[in-house]
Amino acid sequence: MSQEKVKHRERLSGVFAPLATPFDGQGNLLLEKLASNVEKLNKTRLRGYLALGTNGEFRSLSGPEQMKVLKTIVSAASPEKVIMAGTGAESAPVSVELCQQAAEIGAHYGSLITPFFFAKKMSDRALIDYFIQVAERSPIPVLLYNNPGVTNITMSTTVIKEVSSHPKILGMKDSSAGNLSAYLVNAQPGFCVLAGSANFFFTGLIMGAVGGVLSLADVFPEPCCNLYELGVAGKLKEGRDLQLQILKLNQMVSGKFGVAGVKAAMDLVGFYGGPPRAPLLPLTAEEKKKLREDLIASGFMKE
Amino acid sequence: MSQEKVKHRERLSGVFAPLATPFDGQGNLLLEKLASNVEKLNKTRLRGYLALGTNGEFRSLSGPEQMKVLKTIVSAASPEKVIMAGTGAESAPVSVELCQQAAEIGAHYGSLITPFFFAKKMSDRALIDYFIQVAERSPIPVLLYNNPGVTNITMSTTVIKEVSSHPKILGMKDSSAGNLSAYLVNAQPGFCVLAGSANFFFTGLIMGAVGGVLSLADVFPEPCCNLYELGVAGKLKEGRDLQLQILKLNQMVSGKFGVAGVKAAMDLVGFYGGPPRAPLLPLTAEEKKKLREDLIASGFMKE
Amino acid sequence: MSQEKVKHRERLSGVFAPLATPFDGQGNLLLEKLASNVEKLNKTRLRGYLALGTNGEFRSLSGPEQMKVLKTIVSAASPEKVIMAGTGAESAPVSVELCQQAAEIGAHYGSLITPFFFAKKMSDRALIDYFIQVAERSPIPVLLYNNPGVTNITMSTTVIKEVSSHPKILGMKDSSAGNLSAYLVNAQPGFCVLAGSANFFFTGLIMGAVGGVLSLADVFPEPCCNLYELGVAGKLKEGRDLQLQILKLNQMVSGKFGVAGVKAAMDLVGFYGGPPRAPLLPLTAEEKKKLREDLIASGFMKE
Amino acid sequence: MSQEKVKHRERLSGVFAPLATPFDGQGNLLLEKLASNVEKLNKTRLRGYLALGTNGEFRSLSGPEQMKVLKTIVSAASPEKVIMAGTGAESAPVSVELCQQAAEIGAHYGSLITPFFFAKKMSDRALIDYFIQVAERSPIPVLLYNNPGVTNITMSTTVIKEVSSHPKILGMKDSSAGNLSAYLVNAQPGFCVLAGSANFFFTGLIMGAVGGVLSLADVFPEPCCNLYELGVAGKLKEGRDLQLQILKLNQMVSGKFGVAGVKAAMDLVGFYGGPPRAPLLPLTAEEKKKLREDLIASGFMKE
Repeated sequence: MSQEKVKHRERLSGVFAPLATPFDGQGNLLLEKLASNVEKLNKTRLRGYLALGTNGEFRSLSGPEQMKVLKTIVSAASPEKVIMAGTGAESAPVSVELCQQAAEIGAHYGSLITPFFFAKKMSDRALIDYFIQVAERSPIPVLLYNNPGVTNITMSTTVIKEVSSHPKILGMKDSSAGNLSAYLVNAQPGFCVLAGSANFFFTGLIMGAVGGVLSLADVFPEPCCNLYELGVAGKLKEGRDLQLQILKLNQMVSGKFGVAGVKAAMDLVGFYGGPPRAPLLPLTAEEKKKLREDLIASGFMKE
Repeated sequence: MSQEKVKHRERLSGVFAPLATPFDGQGNLLLEKLASNVEKLNKTRLRGYLALGTNGEFRSLSGPEQMKVLKTIVSAASPEKVIMAGTGAESAPVSVELCQQAAEIGAHYGSLITPFFFAKKMSDRALIDYFIQVAERSPIPVLLYNNPGVTNITMSTTVIKEVSSHPKILGMKDSSAGNLSAYLVNAQPGFCVLAGSANFFFTGLIMGAVGGVLSLADVFPEPCCNLYELGVAGKLKEGRDLQLQILKLNQMVSGKFGVAGVKAAMDLVGFYGGPPRAPLLPLTAEEKKKLREDLIASGFMKE
Repeated sequence: MSQEKVKHRERLSGVFAPLATPFDGQGNLLLEKLASNVEKLNKTRLRGYLALGTNGEFRSLSGPEQMKVLKTIVSAASPEKVIMAGTGAESAPVSVELCQQAAEIGAHYGSLITPFFFAKKMSDRALIDYFIQVAERSPIPVLLYNNPGVTNITMSTTVIKEVSSHPKILGMKDSSAGNLSAYLVNAQPGFCVLAGSANFFFTGLIMGAVGGVLSLADVFPEPCCNLYELGVAGKLKEGRDLQLQILKLNQMVSGKFGVAGVKAAMDLVGFYGGPPRAPLLPLTAEEKKKLREDLIASGFMKE
Repeated sequence: MSQEKVKHRERLSGVFAPLATPFDGQGNLLLEKLASNVEKLNKTRLRGYLALGTNGEFRSLSGPEQMKVLKTIVSAASPEKVIMAGTGAESAPVSVELCQQAAEIGAHYGSLITPFFFAKKMSDRALIDYFIQVAERSPIPVLLYNNPGVTNITMSTTVIKEVSSHPKILGMKDSSAGNLSAYLVNAQPGFCVLAGSANFFFTGLIMGAVGGVLSLADVFPEPCCNLYELGVAGKLKEGRDLQLQILKLNQMVSGKFGVAGVKAAMDLVGFYGGPPRAPLLPLTAEEKKKLREDLIASGFMKE
């Protein structure tokens, strides 16, 4: 592994929070709330942040809004935090433009979701060409982002085998349940795989993932960092026990309610969550009440 | 039906071409090619154009590019042509913004695809609220756009029943195969349904659709208009025969190759098609050769 | 078309009821109820019956039970009624065995659903070989059965093109919404296509289908026969109006509730429907009450 | 945990081979080949066998054939081997009948796949009622079988929570990638979870699975038993390394080719595999050659 790759591997190792984007009840951006959330998270052991991810409702923002959000995060983040930014659009030229803008603002890595508007046409060849085209023209290195729950595309191991030695494609985030080991074993040495969900974070680490981008870290960053440390240390019994608890916790929040649930839980623990943008619906009063009870019963939230 | 609705119904009756967006080999916009395509189509019996639809690769364009494309189409279209514009983004605020921009440029109708990034959360309630929010704040009336092949969401008849009496929601385009009659029978009187594919255009007209937005009309506008006229006149035998031929033709082009096929066929018949934007791949030389032979054999293209 | 094919075409033209299989509350077969249902249907204009179809819960029966059901139907049917039997299992040898048993009992046609346990392996080649193997060894001619809602397989037009000239493969039943015209235009001359749902029966007839196998005919055989006659006669206005009403009716019954709904509606109009076999659940008391009200409101059922 | 449950847990701990069913080129059963395969496997550390599973093509067999296969396996198995039998049909009465027949023949456990013909109707309530009905009337205890790749149904954690305390429902086999931990944390204490694929066997064991039913064990039983022992011993480094190798191996065989690949690989290592039953296609000569090369390159097969 090159010196360069070793450095990047170190920077990608740990827990990343895919920051939620705060809105008011009319769907207007609340950038100061975002800054304040980041300032709180700065004090945690989080390795860094993902701006403009699925949990940041990046596709619900206009182009200019996306950049305002990223600027806010970059400004508010303490210097040791690593910043990834969702720069994957539906075409190579637009994704390149986003990578350029993100680089200028100060993001360290671009994150490229598999384009999926034309999902049925996304052959291995189409994806490989796309990822390489964007990486070559991006000023910052990129990470691939596999999320079949959203895209209906599961990146093949052929794609990973082909692009994982590219000097500008440093790793991937895998939010599918069950393909992470296959990516690990098919990737070229040095390629960094991050778990995209707290549900399989511990087993991912056991198998060789370097870290995770976990929506649960928006709400409960410290338990996620504990789990990371148990994984790195190979503490099987404690790790399994915490993983199972965190899995249950994650199901209550994003498993059941998605982004709206993450935001509602953020409100409950002292961050600003607020409502998602339409067409996403916020939790009902009853759902919020139940969520509060569940979180207290879980032991992760104090009454 | 109100005078207003009668007028809109008349304007939506007929065949619309969902215009392709021309690019060069590097993915750069070629607006003059687009204008020239429109000028050729102005001479046909087409009722109008859909700018920024699926076949226009609207999600492959940046926000500013979308508006350049729309401006070009509005400028080049002859005055009697009706202009619809794809203004459906992934959130209400962004869709409203697109409707406002499209209205300023001169589009007559906005077309709202069902948001689908969070497809699993798109309950009837979520979609109804979204469509009404956007319609209320749009300066121009809107049409809904149902395309489960892309979105993995089939709009329910409950949604149509609820929103089809809204004064700003005038109709819908249905690209699903097999739900058009159900929308027709559940919609409030006066709601205009357009077929979103040449595959079921004739039967759609028989059942009560007012027109169609047909990618095949980008390539073969006149046969599509012939089919429309046979449908309106209720000429069963001739209509069926032409429908079956057109179905076969459509399968050769967009059925087999999607947008890239429509563009390749445009090149063959004298429009500018050109390559799609990456990650979509253009047809290979061999595929183009086969397409040419198939089109000639179909009788719709002269050698 | 051969004399033989003309004769078969005539026999397949019209409306077929895919007979429900009556059970008691413990899931025991009630063959006398089945016979009595058939005797009532004998007096209608139905062209014939499909025994052991999806609505007959054929896969919920053991092998010996399947043959008891078929025998009961064959015995009870009046001689002019044509009998199809579901003889499609998950492998060629078992399907052949079912065809042989069905032939002995007196069925006129076997119906072969696309095997789907190994759906991901059902390439065109696999399906073509399978259909031909079974047809060659079946004593009676067979019809193909396409039902992606159950099987997650949509038969390709390539399959139809290849097998539709086989002397023992006379036609198909298409329950997918939206592929019927494509099958018609790709099939060899003389191949009989039947609509598999009342939702698109009229347009199917307009396009060239010879008949339909309609679960709604289990409940309302006469309106289905009326629709058939309007389709054959090409009466556009009356046909469309009845089609739209029947579509609404069908949605209340099998659209909403599937087999359990068809059975509940049968009970309401004087047939024996009864409960489906577990794991299918019967309608709740409240659902039955609502169904009754809806059917009365539809005008198709007298109070 | 009751004495009884402890005993069953011990009997379910380890690696099970889901035995393939041998056929000749015409699809005829070759029971003596099956017996001979079992005799070879008797000498391994395998805990037992699954008769009539997905890899046994159980749905491709007639009812009487299924029982012949089971008898052959029970007779050939050495006394310490534990026998599970696929007894899940598409309805409660038929599944109960299969459980009774399997019990008479000598199977120790029945395995109940989620019924899936009516997949869209398989609510939690429907599945819970079904599993309990069958378990109550089965003479032998049952295991649930979750395989969404075949059934398009992912059993919910609600189902597991409700049925996992039933005295006759002792555990489950999970072939989905990514739900195993969720089942573990939601099940009542003592419920046994087995991994249904070698792809996630090691991490499954780490999280609390008691064993696995692995198609790879039909071909390479000893490496699968090695992986089991590393998992039980919590040897992280060796376990991970072997897991990654086995994952790659599994992808070459069943990942790429399914049942036909397992059978072809069996032929290569000295078992009788033979062709699958139509409509499944056997590997082509070229595919077999490539498989042979891949297996040799993997190091698991001697040249």
